[in-house]
Amino acid sequence: MATKTRLPDSEGQIISAAGRAARVDERLNHALAVHLSKLTPITFLERSAVTFADKAAVVYEDQQYNYAEFRRRVHRLASALRRAGIEPGDRIAYLAPNIPAMLEAHFAAPLAGAILVAINIRLNSNEIAYILNHSGAKLLVADSELASLLAPVSAQLSATRQFVIVRDTPAESPHQSPLGGPVYEDYEDFLATGEDEFEDVRLDDENDAISVNYTSGTTGKPKGVIYTHRGAYLNALGVTEMLEVQSRSNYLWIVPMFHCNGWCFPWGVTAMGATHICVRRPDPEKILEAIRKRRVTHFCGAPTVLTSLLHHPAARAYRLDHPLRAATGGSPPSPALIRDGERFGMEIVHLYGLTETYGPFTFCEWRAEWDGKELAERARIKALQGVPHVLSGTGLRVVDSQMRDVPADGRTLGEIVMRGNNVMKGYYQDPKATAEAFRGGWFHSGDLAVLHPSGYVEIRDRKKDIIISGGENISTQEVEKALCDHADVLEAAVIAVPDGKWGEVPKAYVTLKPGRETTERDILEFCRQKLAHFKCPKTVVFGPLPKTSTGKVKKFELRERDWAGYDKKVH
Amino acid sequence: MATKTRLPDSEGQIISAAGRAARVDERLNHALAVHLSKLTPITFLERSAVTFADKAAVVYEDQQYNYAEFRRRVHRLASALRRAGIEPGDRIAYLAPNIPAMLEAHFAAPLAGAILVAINIRLNSNEIAYILNHSGAKLLVADSELASLLAPVSAQLSATRQFVIVRDTPAESPHQSPLGGPVYEDYEDFLATGEDEFEDVRLDDENDAISVNYTSGTTGKPKGVIYTHRGAYLNALGVTEMLEVQSRSNYLWIVPMFHCNGWCFPWGVTAMGATHICVRRPDPEKILEAIRKRRVTHFCGAPTVLTSLLHHPAARAYRLDHPLRAATGGSPPSPALIRDGERFGMEIVHLYGLTETYGPFTFCEWRAEWDGKELAERARIKALQGVPHVLSGTGLRVVDSQMRDVPADGRTLGEIVMRGNNVMKGYYQDPKATAEAFRGGWFHSGDLAVLHPSGYVEIRDRKKDIIISGGENISTQEVEKALCDHADVLEAAVIAVPDGKWGEVPKAYVTLKPGRETTERDILEFCRQKLAHFKCPKTVVFGPLPKTSTGKVKKFELRERDWAGYDKKVH
Repeated sequence: MATKTRLPDSEGQIISAAGRAARVDERLNHALAVHLSKLTPITFLERSAVTFADKAAVVYEDQQYNYAEFRRRVHRLASALRRAGIEPGDRIAYLAPNIPAMLEAHFAAPLAGAILVAINIRLNSNEIAYILNHSGAKLLVADSELASLLAPVSAQLSATRQFVIVRDTPAESPHQSPLGGPVYEDYEDFLATGEDEFEDVRLDDENDAISVNYTSGTTGKPKGVIYTHRGAYLNALGVTEMLEVQSRSNYLWIVPMFHCNGWCFPWGVTAMGATHICVRRPDPEKILEAIRKRRVTHFCGAPTVLTSLLHHPAARAYRLDHPLRAATGGSPPSPALIRDGERFGMEIVHLYGLTETYGPFTFCEWRAEWDGKELAERARIKALQGVPHVLSGTGLRVVDSQMRDVPADGRTLGEIVMRGNNVMKGYYQDPKATAEAFRGGWFHSGDLAVLHPSGYVEIRDRKKDIIISGGENISTQEVEKALCDHADVLEAAVIAVPDGKWGEVPKAYVTLKPGRETTERDILEFCRQKLAHFKCPKTVVFGPLPKTSTGKVKKFELRERDWAGYDKKVH
Repeated sequence: MATKTRLPDSEGQIISAAGRAARVDERLNHALAVHLSKLTPITFLERSAVTFADKAAVVYEDQQYNYAEFRRRVHRLASALRRAGIEPGDRIAYLAPNIPAMLEAHFAAPLAGAILVAINIRLNSNEIAYILNHSGAKLLVADSELASLLAPVSAQLSATRQFVIVRDTPAESPHQSPLGGPVYEDYEDFLATGEDEFEDVRLDDENDAISVNYTSGTTGKPKGVIYTHRGAYLNALGVTEMLEVQSRSNYLWIVPMFHCNGWCFPWGVTAMGATHICVRRPDPEKILEAIRKRRVTHFCGAPTVLTSLLHHPAARAYRLDHPLRAATGGSPPSPALIRDGERFGMEIVHLYGLTETYGPFTFCEWRAEWDGKELAERARIKALQGVPHVLSGTGLRVVDSQMRDVPADGRTLGEIVMRGNNVMKGYYQDPKATAEAFRGGWFHSGDLAVLHPSGYVEIRDRKKDIIISGGENISTQEVEKALCDHADVLEAAVIAVPDGKWGEVPKAYVTLKPGRETTERDILEFCRQKLAHFKCPKTVVFGPLPKTSTGKVKKFELRERDWAGYDKKVH
């Protein structure tokens, strides 16, 4: 019952959970008219801590806590942050996998008025130091396994003075300083310095920053993408509406929370009062175990995550006995993946977005009339990036270089541009890059797409990935799709390589399915049956593909090999 | 396909449905930063006209049109309104049942920047004239069956100069002026003066008014409750989330759209791309027919509507073969109603709100742990008004006269107060009433409730309905609930009547189930077994209950009879 979390107020009066939530509301909105309240994800947790006080909020390994406890830990953390000198507008950084502390950060940072900087844990020490310095984060919370990344660069840090270590893995010795120097505090000890009820809630404007997410930065330095309270609130509602997350849902954490704040699901899943299932390392065995044991109803992950799950020996024999919806983005799901997903019993939802759009901005909203279509046709449709979700609304166009809408003919290539509440406020302390990205009053995605007569968009390539061969444009994605139709191919990446005659020609990197064998010649023959000859790769290289922490193929790495010695800029 | 709705732009270029939606977006947000778009329900229709272009948007009798056509009619109407001299900020009034023209008004009025005043069609001529004059509506759209209400008062109208008649019923003679004087235009002719694409979209601020809804005004003159674009947008998302309306849903129109703008469902159902099923008169036969033929998945209605549906002879034998969720409010559903609903195969959701809160503000959010409970216990829980829905968030308190939160003990009575984005902006041109309603920075509902330890609120009475008998408070709702537990009772209303000894005592008005008979003595005996003696009615009157157009019992009418000759103010 909620009663057990009742606390005396300043006059010693016992106030209820509902009364305490209303107090946070009053502090957030004290200067506003009665008909206005600030849009902020803070209220999601406050509401769920009343409505779902006793319900499982967070499940992690053999730990579990309910929404009342989730709120208490968040309030303690916010209170501890303020005591540690964190004031509204200050940045605090996190370096952690999808553990409960990361979820807590998504509410405690805004509650304290701080701006969350969740750093990609696959970066190297120098990259991490760059982000800490660029964001000016005063405090860093790091997982004990990752804290050692800080040791070599701790002297270079210009603003970060306080360190909190989450001792999540028991193997860690409690006496050893993982930072190799700086003084640090244990996360649970740090929480203990806070109070169950954080009183100093301040938020000037719903358009104030809630987080800064650094892009992976394949060219130049990473840029800090600013999210606002309003944008986070609205996109969180958008993504849960899109996937139909409800209070009975069990959401499995695969997409890292340091990636676009986990596509806004830390906030959305909490809003719905659903259960967060945290996993430190989401390998196929762990995912399968969670699906079985925790009856996972939703997760998000790159197609490569889905592929490795569905191709795992243990998954092949397994058939789901409950509904499961998996959202995927980054690259379109292949027909084979959709088929394998259906066999497994999961529904795959294809979505699209960028760090600059709070994660998912569009999805392939499924129409009832498509239900009865053949797999191949369903797969073709599912590969579309689709339409803006309800909260993205009308803020998407496909335009030519003069910002004119391209015709909805499924052929004319244009750039996807977006605007609205779930487009970033700008790049942190980078007005030049912001102005460039926002030219013409729209955010330029750099993704080249066609608009189908149905109104659905389909990305044909990254602007920088397009191959220009003998004056013809070749979409690397089109070639990759053709390669993936080959029965032996698991994954493929196509890049442009220099060619004396044509300028550029396509080259394919291919990973075969386990136990399969084939030849370059066979692959090329197959392509020639499916594609115009000029689109076919000239060479095929077999082997694993280099990938980013979020499962995207690092094409720039492939390109570097082939373009070494050439003048052309490596993207 | 959306292609068939493509139109040439001003330069003769063919632009797509998606391109046109983005143009509306640009006009709405032209002066805003890239990361901001105004929250307005306009974008719901624009998005659905792309995503669900070919899907049934509105079904009415043997008519049906898709979202592309719905948008076209709305744009034509907005364009016709502008041509007729309606400028942003002007009020336009409607007098119509739940026909498609009413749905169109909910998008065309805001698109043209006008403020919609949907008038209760059960009012008399003078009341209608009062609202037209108070709101200063320049134009009135009236259903031909209702237009005759205007005839006796047309000379009294101070601002309304233009009349448009919807000829929905074929019996109407086309040559007769239903207004008995004023010149009028036929609705379809009026639409024909507009263009398929309305170009002059203007909206200064998302907090500008979208509609004014006049309260039923049982005391004094009706007050005009102002809704904003932002509030309508957010509450529309709240109510669809609450009922889980999705693109495959079929929503049946029972709650009148002139009542809190149909609880915001005109906007919410459109946002989801679901299908609106319009019905002119939602009698039980019509409702049943729609449920069967149109596979209705959702509807909203007062408990009396549900009762008359479930007690209809044709419903008794009928069992649903598809999911149906019915939301009810105004008074709590009785255990018998919940049982009958379950037998029929529908899930009943209990919600609560007022005109001043855009309709539903809270609902009894169902927890999985309650699934296995006995009917009586489930019914007891379902009767709670519950918790704020996700978009209402944290904006609700139960407070004593000093605005202190009451303890969550399920016993201490306090008043429900609310604030936030789905609380009205104020009463139209009535700053005094607004200030009174908003005293202390919260909207005062006038509803007396307890807060349960679970955090759920339960209304015990309207402030003005409470009976004070010998110094004891008696909740009329508690007595009514006890009466409804009697096997022969269909409905009951309890009021205070004057008493020489006790000051006030309860008196019951009871309607029996068809074919049932019982005596006053039997009813009183039954009450004494269930309630403290002082709470039992002293008299029981049998017969039908007088009701408002929205199905609420008109207690003031009952009171008038009993309080005639007394000093006490008739509420």
